[in-house]
Amino acid sequence: VTAPRIVEVRRGVLEGNDVRAGRLRARFRESGVTAINLVSSPGTGKTRLLEELLRRMSAAHRVGALVGDCATDNDAVRLARSGAPVRQIVTEGMCHLEADLVERHLEGFPEVDVLFIENVGNLVCPSSFDLGETLRLVLLSVTEGEDKPLKYPSIFASADLAVLTKCDLAEACEFDRDVALAAIDAVHPGLTVIETSARTGAGLDLLIDHLLPVPARS
Amino acid sequence: VTAPRIVEVRRGVLEGNDVRAGRLRARFRESGVTAINLVSSPGTGKTRLLEELLRRMSAAHRVGALVGDCATDNDAVRLARSGAPVRQIVTEGMCHLEADLVERHLEGFPEVDVLFIENVGNLVCPSSFDLGETLRLVLLSVTEGEDKPLKYPSIFASADLAVLTKCDLAEACEFDRDVALAAIDAVHPGLTVIETSARTGAGLDLLIDHLLPVPARS
Repeated sequence: VTAPRIVEVRRGVLEGNDVRAGRLRARFRESGVTAINLVSSPGTGKTRLLEELLRRMSAAHRVGALVGDCATDNDAVRLARSGAPVRQIVTEGMCHLEADLVERHLEGFPEVDVLFIENVGNLVCPSSFDLGETLRLVLLSVTEGEDKPLKYPSIFASADLAVLTKCDLAEACEFDRDVALAAIDAVHPGLTVIETSARTGAGLDLLIDHLLPVPARS
Repeated sequence: VTAPRIVEVRRGVLEGNDVRAGRLRARFRESGVTAINLVSSPGTGKTRLLEELLRRMSAAHRVGALVGDCATDNDAVRLARSGAPVRQIVTEGMCHLEADLVERHLEGFPEVDVLFIENVGNLVCPSSFDLGETLRLVLLSVTEGEDKPLKYPSIFASADLAVLTKCDLAEACEFDRDVALAAIDAVHPGLTVIETSARTGAGLDLLIDHLLPVPARS
């Protein structure tokens, strides 16, 4: 296999995904759905945050979630306890979600105002795959280290909003908040960062204010 | 782009990598080098652990490290403080190391007895790419959640040894040790797990005992 051939095939995959993502984006816009793509490392707390968001938002909005994982339906089981419609996407080892997987798993899914799409835990590959989302939300936990935005710049550069998670553990981790915020700003100047703790509830209402109403994504 | 073509190209990439990894493995064996591939999520503490290992092992052994990252040479700068030879592999966005990158970065590298290869932080993609290593060491931090082995089974199934990191934070994270160990055992029955804290030094000497002498990898 020659390098140019790999590059060419990869370009083809991304172009095909972009076409399908564009179709999804149009569909979300026409039906008034705010679609939110959650991306982060494994273990940053996407599912835990989503549990809290579904619980808090479901009184005033029709919310639902698609959750991607390489294996297991653990997250769908956890999130379904909120009462919101939830569907698991098992990628069978694939390291990211693609638009056609989202499209297929929306067949027969209840109508919602806000659709969360929890990506596979991975700070690299999901950055290249548009899911037609209205908003891309990148999470960084205080336990991961302040330099992650510098080491995985694409995913922070492509995000519309950043969320710091597990802030209740900041002191135990000797987390340096200023260094982390500077790292995010270096790869994505001006990106809004919401500091949260799903355990204490800190920052969650502020985060919801930033999700609704959501500015249209071009 | 049709799906069979992607599968075929991916197979070609993996087969090409396997050939180069086999060449590397033969070279490591002939020159008596123990090569250790460190894999984990971003932020699990690979670099922090490596700092401690290089420091503790360098008295009795010639140790060195190649460190992979999508961007920055932060880790090489950190690790070089140990006095051991260290070289950064910047993957420019690629989500894993491949054997040919390791091969190229070994050109002119000093002779060592133990070569650590710190992979890109990613629990999915590095599992498919053999680097010719003697030993694959998977890290899981107590801050990430007990279910990660179940959700990312390939990387735990392909590892020769597992290390729990940041055990000093276990209580603050309400980490359930038994659940985590059961999850590892479910995807890789019998895998040895060493519980460590780079901050307190707990488990590090035990880990080094497990790294040296290293059994030959078939």
